[in-house]
Amino acid sequence: MGHRRFEVTTLGTGAALPARGRFPTAQLVNVQEALYLIDCGEGTQERLRVAGVNFSRIGHAFISHLHGDHYLGLMGLLSSMHLLGRTVRFHVHGPPELREVVDLQLRVSGTYLRFPLEFHPLAPVSGALAWEDHHVVVRLLALDHRLPCTGFVFEERPAPRTLRKDKLHLVPQFKRAAAKAGEDLRFPDGTVIPNTELTDDPPAARRYAYCSDTAYAPALIPFIEGVDLLYHEATFTEGLRKRAHETQHSTAAQAASIARAANVGQLLLGHFSSRYKNADELLAEALPIFPRSLLSFEGGVFPVIERSIV
Amino acid sequence: MGHRRFEVTTLGTGAALPARGRFPTAQLVNVQEALYLIDCGEGTQERLRVAGVNFSRIGHAFISHLHGDHYLGLMGLLSSMHLLGRTVRFHVHGPPELREVVDLQLRVSGTYLRFPLEFHPLAPVSGALAWEDHHVVVRLLALDHRLPCTGFVFEERPAPRTLRKDKLHLVPQFKRAAAKAGEDLRFPDGTVIPNTELTDDPPAARRYAYCSDTAYAPALIPFIEGVDLLYHEATFTEGLRKRAHETQHSTAAQAASIARAANVGQLLLGHFSSRYKNADELLAEALPIFPRSLLSFEGGVFPVIERSIV
Repeated sequence: MGHRRFEVTTLGTGAALPARGRFPTAQLVNVQEALYLIDCGEGTQERLRVAGVNFSRIGHAFISHLHGDHYLGLMGLLSSMHLLGRTVRFHVHGPPELREVVDLQLRVSGTYLRFPLEFHPLAPVSGALAWEDHHVVVRLLALDHRLPCTGFVFEERPAPRTLRKDKLHLVPQFKRAAAKAGEDLRFPDGTVIPNTELTDDPPAARRYAYCSDTAYAPALIPFIEGVDLLYHEATFTEGLRKRAHETQHSTAAQAASIARAANVGQLLLGHFSSRYKNADELLAEALPIFPRSLLSFEGGVFPVIERSIV
Repeated sequence: MGHRRFEVTTLGTGAALPARGRFPTAQLVNVQEALYLIDCGEGTQERLRVAGVNFSRIGHAFISHLHGDHYLGLMGLLSSMHLLGRTVRFHVHGPPELREVVDLQLRVSGTYLRFPLEFHPLAPVSGALAWEDHHVVVRLLALDHRLPCTGFVFEERPAPRTLRKDKLHLVPQFKRAAAKAGEDLRFPDGTVIPNTELTDDPPAARRYAYCSDTAYAPALIPFIEGVDLLYHEATFTEGLRKRAHETQHSTAAQAASIARAANVGQLLLGHFSSRYKNADELLAEALPIFPRSLLSFEGGVFPVIERSIV
């Protein structure tokens, strides 16, 4: 259902050394106006301002690992939320040591946050449940990097069932919400019309998978099988495959191979090494292997489109 | 002497909440191509890139205090220097807890810096010597803020004495450097021409004083008396004097009063609260009290002009 928003804004698409107009990694996931930040490199708060995002609407930050280009913007964002008068709980999901880093920095700056900060330590176990609320279920991916590193699969909550037009006259107004939720219709005389006769299945719940930073990791495939949109890092081209291996990053070709093997809807590439003046050569490498490949860019907005219609 | 460079680039002029195109506090002091960073708010590495500064040329960072808007960019800058292959020593001068913060973040990210990082803990004692090298002598200022907070006075090394044109014929070529350094001229027959007859005094060594963040602090005056350029924070206007007092910041009028009482050359205002859409009203408040007042701005370059000729 196109009108149920589920989209990813790529705020930063650079690798460890920000340069060439790229910023460090950060993404904003919008699921029906519930906002989730994934990674938070230095300057993320500035990128969010440029994108016109009201900080107070963001409920969560999911931090994949503790390389600076993925988390150094978190303290500044927390501090700005505090100064802007936030009182609503904020959730941080990340490696256990992140709590130490945040707590130490709050202590040395004498900051007592006005809002509750709830910390959820992450262990990188593929398939493990990390979070669920009315909008999403978030599961983890065990990425393969130099530090413990966690990917995320965001699955939207399924839409309600849709009432069949030709059966609408059978369902009283006050029973429609229940029917959309899947209830059978029971009349006082004991008659029952099963829900399946009144409603159609909603569209399949869409999924977005985030994999950065990681070496080529086929072990991920069963956990991202068939996702509608896969973000996969593509730090290098094949010419630097050895360097990719040493630094536990991926080439664009490797990202595309994972996308193909996992039979995903679309592949979104990012985390481009500063050596690439523009990312076109990374895309050129991915396209022959997986044609539905896209380049992320600063401020780019990518809707999660149902895989069957891509 | 105008050709001896001594200038300040204001990289960020915002207060705690960055907004309205202002960035958090950071300044670059250039003393004859030796570069010293003062404070390093989030995004400073990006501001340095925009200003075209080669990171490898920066030798020192002086951090005034541990509010995030003055130091959160340091880790990212250190990390980028590392990735860019720096091997030359880098000096960080700051509150003792800053070392804990840096060490913890290096540890959790598994980073072993390729260059020696030398940490110099600061205690805010006005007049105390913090650093000296061939280009500058740096002394401290005890600012008055919610956390221990240190200001800095950068004094350039005096220029060499200048040879008097009318006495040039008396000084052999190979003795000229010695004469400029202040030596008398001694002839083999025992004759001595005292240096004062051969050379003129060089221009007075210029001084730049940095005062951010601080409440109105007249105790600073003897330590900044007669400096050529004074940077003083001006977070609020007089209309918010109470708020300035509570948060231990200054109004523009208070900054100007300090500048007048200390009889400085020029006053540079900064650290503007995000409530001021533009900083003109802060300048308007300072000018009647101290006419040689200037507004800092992002990327602004302010030469330290000898006070007697301003």
